[in-house]
Amino acid sequence: MKARALGLGLALLAMAGGALAPPPALAQSGPDVARAYRQANEAVILGEFAELLRYPNRAFTPELREAAVYIRDRMREAGVETELLELEGASPLVLGVVEVPGATRTLGIYVHYDGQPVDPSSWTHEPFEPTLYDAAMEAGGRPIDLPPEGAPVDPEWRIYARSAGDDKAPIAAILPVLRSFTEAGLTPTSNLVFMFDGEEEAGSRNLGTYMEMASDVLDDIDIWLFFDGPAHSSGRPQVVFGVRGASGMEVTVYGASRNLHSGHYGNWAPDTGIILARLLASMKDDDGRVLVDGWYETFDAIGDEERAALEAMPDGEDELKRELGLVRTEGEPETLPERLLLPALNVRGITSGNTGDLAANVIPNTAVASLGIRMVRGNTAEQLRELIVAHIERQGFHVVEDDPDMETRLRYPRIAKVTGGLVGSIASRTSMANPFAQSVTAAARAAAERAFGEGALVVAPGMGGTLPLYLFTDVAGKPAMVVPVANHDNNQHAPDENLRIANLWYAIDLYAALMTMPSTVF
Amino acid sequence: MKARALGLGLALLAMAGGALAPPPALAQSGPDVARAYRQANEAVILGEFAELLRYPNRAFTPELREAAVYIRDRMREAGVETELLELEGASPLVLGVVEVPGATRTLGIYVHYDGQPVDPSSWTHEPFEPTLYDAAMEAGGRPIDLPPEGAPVDPEWRIYARSAGDDKAPIAAILPVLRSFTEAGLTPTSNLVFMFDGEEEAGSRNLGTYMEMASDVLDDIDIWLFFDGPAHSSGRPQVVFGVRGASGMEVTVYGASRNLHSGHYGNWAPDTGIILARLLASMKDDDGRVLVDGWYETFDAIGDEERAALEAMPDGEDELKRELGLVRTEGEPETLPERLLLPALNVRGITSGNTGDLAANVIPNTAVASLGIRMVRGNTAEQLRELIVAHIERQGFHVVEDDPDMETRLRYPRIAKVTGGLVGSIASRTSMANPFAQSVTAAARAAAERAFGEGALVVAPGMGGTLPLYLFTDVAGKPAMVVPVANHDNNQHAPDENLRIANLWYAIDLYAALMTMPSTVF
Repeated sequence: MKARALGLGLALLAMAGGALAPPPALAQSGPDVARAYRQANEAVILGEFAELLRYPNRAFTPELREAAVYIRDRMREAGVETELLELEGASPLVLGVVEVPGATRTLGIYVHYDGQPVDPSSWTHEPFEPTLYDAAMEAGGRPIDLPPEGAPVDPEWRIYARSAGDDKAPIAAILPVLRSFTEAGLTPTSNLVFMFDGEEEAGSRNLGTYMEMASDVLDDIDIWLFFDGPAHSSGRPQVVFGVRGASGMEVTVYGASRNLHSGHYGNWAPDTGIILARLLASMKDDDGRVLVDGWYETFDAIGDEERAALEAMPDGEDELKRELGLVRTEGEPETLPERLLLPALNVRGITSGNTGDLAANVIPNTAVASLGIRMVRGNTAEQLRELIVAHIERQGFHVVEDDPDMETRLRYPRIAKVTGGLVGSIASRTSMANPFAQSVTAAARAAAERAFGEGALVVAPGMGGTLPLYLFTDVAGKPAMVVPVANHDNNQHAPDENLRIANLWYAIDLYAALMTMPSTVF
Repeated sequence: MKARALGLGLALLAMAGGALAPPPALAQSGPDVARAYRQANEAVILGEFAELLRYPNRAFTPELREAAVYIRDRMREAGVETELLELEGASPLVLGVVEVPGATRTLGIYVHYDGQPVDPSSWTHEPFEPTLYDAAMEAGGRPIDLPPEGAPVDPEWRIYARSAGDDKAPIAAILPVLRSFTEAGLTPTSNLVFMFDGEEEAGSRNLGTYMEMASDVLDDIDIWLFFDGPAHSSGRPQVVFGVRGASGMEVTVYGASRNLHSGHYGNWAPDTGIILARLLASMKDDDGRVLVDGWYETFDAIGDEERAALEAMPDGEDELKRELGLVRTEGEPETLPERLLLPALNVRGITSGNTGDLAANVIPNTAVASLGIRMVRGNTAEQLRELIVAHIERQGFHVVEDDPDMETRLRYPRIAKVTGGLVGSIASRTSMANPFAQSVTAAARAAAERAFGEGALVVAPGMGGTLPLYLFTDVAGKPAMVVPVANHDNNQHAPDENLRIANLWYAIDLYAALMTMPSTVF
C-alpha cells in the first residue's frame, strides 16, 4: 500500500479493543444510541466543541498543524486509527479509518479543518475565543457562560467563533457519535474513511496529491459524503448532488491611446463606456438569458430523478425575493434551484474612469469588465471561454491577449483584450439514481425528520457554489454528495460566524444514521 | 457709477501723461511698433515673463492676491488706470481701463491669472521656478539660463512653469505692447477694458458678481476677447466663436439589496452590470449617435458663416486619429469640428464591483455610471436631463432620486437613481456675422499670417471645451470670441506646462493688431 510505503502505518483496521466488534442483536438503533449519549452529555459535547474552536485555523498558515494534531488525537481516543499525511509547505491531511468486519460498503467522509482568514476588528468577539449566546445576535441574543457539566443546554443557543459552521461543527459531532457507539457496543454498518482537509479555504491545492498518496485506502470507497456547507436557504436541512464549477475572465475595450478631455473630444472620440456596455448588452437579454451562441448546448442534461427532485424542492422564491428586495429575477418563471443547473454568466465588476466625487471630465481610454462564469457538468472553462471569444469577435472586435500596440490600434476599429478563463474549478454532479446515494438520502431524510419534523429534508440536484467535488467524482470516479449540517445563517466566511446548537444535535442524529444505515437498500 | 460708489476710483480715463494722446499721422502700424519693440527687448520681455511666473497662483488660495497686486502695478507702470475689485473670501479681480479720445469702440479683454493646482512631485522642475529649455523636453530640449539683456532669444525655446500657457502668457504680452505704444506715441483705435480673473480655474464663481460691480465700465464694451486657451490641435493659431456648456449626472441601477455570491445566486439574481450595460447601450448606437429621444432637436442651428468656416477648417482628422491610435471615430464621416457643434453624451466612468486582482465572486448590488454632457447653444442642463430621465423611464426603469427603500424595491422590477445634472455651465456661441467679430477675425488673420505664414489662422465656429463665455454673451449680451496664443502642446492643467517663445512673440503681434485694428470694417 502506498500509504504504508510512506511510513504512515495506515490501513483498514478493526476498531481497537473490540468495542466496535460485530453487532449482537441490538435493542437500540444507531441514531437512538447517539441521541441518548448526546442528551446525557450536552454540556460536555459543547465544551469540547469550544475547545476545538480555540485552535486558530486561518487558511494558508502553519498554525493549522496544531489543529490537525488535535483532531488526530481526538479521533484516536474515539477508537479510530488516524494518521497525518504531510507534504512540505502544506497543511497536513488527517486520515482516519474504521474497518468493520463483514461490511460490504465503505463511506468516505470529507471535512475540512481550516477556516477563512479573519479580520478580528470586524468581529464582536475574538474569532478564536468561542462565545456562547442565548440566541442569535441579530435576534437580540446575549452572551452567556459555557454551561458546567450536567447543566441543561438550550438548542437555540449559538456559539460564535471562526469555523463554528464552516467546518468544525462536523468534527464536533463525529467524535461523540463514535464514542456513543463504543460505549453501547455498536458497530457501523459500513467501513468508514475520514479525511480532514487542511486546505479547503486555500483551494485544496494539495488534495489531489494527498489523495494519490492515500489511494490504497481511498480506492475502496463507494461514496463520498461532504460534511460541509449550510442548510438550504429555507432553513431546512438538505442533501446536495452537485456543485457548479467556476472560472473568471476579464474583457478590456479600448478607445484612444490616452484619456481624452470630454469637452475637446466628446462626441468624436470612441466612448469606451458605451463600447463596453454595447458588448455586455449583447451577451445577455433583459430576461437574463445568455445570448452567447452555443451557451446552452454545452452541458449534460439532467435526468428524471433530478427533475422530480426539482419539483419537490420547497418553493422559497417569494420569501427569498422579499428578503433581497427583488420583484424580478433572471429567467423567471424558472426558480433558483432550476437556474443553478445551468451555466451562469455574470458581471462581477466594471471599471472605467471614475464615478461620484472622483468623476472627471474625461473619456476613459479603457473600460474593463470582469466576468464570472459558473459551470455545470459537461462544461469546461476553456470551452465557455471559446464561445465568449467567438461572440466578442462576432460583435466586430479584434480579440487580443495583451494591450494593443499602436500598429494594432491603427489596424482594427474595435479591439478587446480577453484575459483569464482558461482554467477553472470543475463542476460535479452525482446521479440521484446511484444506489449508494439513495441509501444516504434515505438515512438523511430519517435524521432530518427526527430532528425537524416530517418532510424536513430538501433534496437538491445541485447547488450554485463551488467545491472541489470533481476530485472525487471525476478524478477518482466515485459518487459524492454534500450533506451539510450548519444553520443557513451561520455567517460562514464572514465575521461573527456561528453555529446554532440545534444544528450540532442534528449533525449527531444524521451522522449516526449514516454510519448505521441498512445495507439492504442496495 | 457703481464702481466709483465702491470706492474703486475706476473710470474710463485717458492714458496718463498724454503718451497715448490722439495719433498724429504715423509712419508705423501698431504691429510694426510692437514687433520692433519686442525685437529690441526680447531678453527683457522674457525676464519679465519669468518674474510673473514666479508668483504662485494655485486656484482657490490666498496667495493669488500677491499676483493680482503685481499685475495691477505692472499695468499702472504701462500707463493703464488699474484697480483691484475685492470680495470677501474671493481672489481679486484686476480691472484696467484705457480710454481713447475719439474711439467709437470698446474692446473687453479677458485674461485669468490663477492656475491649476500643482503636484510638484510630478514636475521636472519646481512649478513656480520657471526654467528655460532650448527646445521642448519631449524633443530632447535641455535647460539653459535666462539670457542677459540684449542677448538673442531663440523662438523655439520653451519656458516651463505653471501657467506659462494657461494663462500668464497673455499678461506677459500685453505689457510690452502697451509700453511699445507709449514709447512710439501710438494710440489704440479702441477703448480697452482689461479684466484679469483670479478664479477661472475655480469655476469663476465670483465673476458674475464682480461684473455687476463693474457694470458701468463693462456696459460700454462692444466685444469681449478671451485671451486664453491653446492653438488649434494642428498647431496653427485660431480664433473661436463658441464653447460648449457642461454638466454631469450619475445613474445607479440596483440588483438585490446586498451583494450576492455569484455561485449561489448567479443566473437568478439580477445582474447589475448587465442591467446598466443594457441601459447605456440604449443611449447611443454603434456609430456614436445619441438615441435619447429629442437629443438633436434641442439646440440652435448654425448659420451660413459657420458652415462656411467649417468647410475651411484644416483637415486634421487623419493626423489626429493616427496620434490617438484610432481607426474609427464617433459620427464618421463628420469631422471633429462638426461634432463639437452638437451636444455630446459620454460615459465618464462606470463602477460596479471590482476588476483585476480585486474582482470577487459576487453579483454587485449596484452599478453606477457617471455621464458627462456637453451642451451647445440652445441647450440647458435641465432640458437634457429631462430627456435622459424620460429615456431611462422608457427603458422600463422607475427613476428615483435617493437609494430605494425596501418598499420601493419590492414595487418596481427596475430602479434607476439619477442624481446631478440639474445645473451646468452654459454653452455660448457668437455669430460670425457680427461686425465686431469680423474686425477681430481680420486683425487676427493678419497677425497670424505675419507670424506663421499665409492662411495660418484657423477660424473655428466652436470648441469642445467649456469657458464661462455665457456670462458675457448670454448674461451681459455681448459678442465674445476666444483668441488663444499658447502652443497647442503647452501641457495646460498638467505637469511641465510650458510656453514656446514663438507663441509669446505671436501674442505681441496679435494684441498689437487687435488694439489698432481699423474702425472701417464696421
